[in-house]
Amino acid sequence: MDIRVRFGRNVRALRAETGLSQDEFADKVGVHRTYMSGIERGVRAPTIIVVEKIAKALGVSAGKLFD
Amino acid sequence: MDIRVRFGRNVRALRAETGLSQDEFADKVGVHRTYMSGIERGVRAPTIIVVEKIAKALGVSAGKLFD
Repeated sequence: MDIRVRFGRNVRALRAETGLSQDEFADKVGVHRTYMSGIERGVRAPTIIVVEKIAKALGVSAGKLFD
Repeated sequence: MDIRVRFGRNVRALRAETGLSQDEFADKVGVHRTYMSGIERGVRAPTIIVVEKIAKALGVSAGKLFD
């Protein structure tokens, strides 16, 4: 499976557990909501800087987002 | 510590264990050697696509590169 799709599904599932909307989560991470939408849809390839921000916002290790 | 610096140090250390030169490793990963040099020096922010390629080439989980 394409890493972008796998990564996006992980972010979406973990974000859903937080109860945050995609927009609220995008604000928390500090990225534009359309960019976050693209990440969760598996059509964006974030850099390690954004990966770290997402992991911190979710309270998980960066590695978990690559599972 | 800046995630780029931390990531770069992890890649360099793990690559050193393989005995591959930076050029050989860049070829194995499929990126230009100057880009790989930038990654290892902590001045580049690779995307999750390159992260996955590097992890596979090193035979480690992507998460290990974020430790």
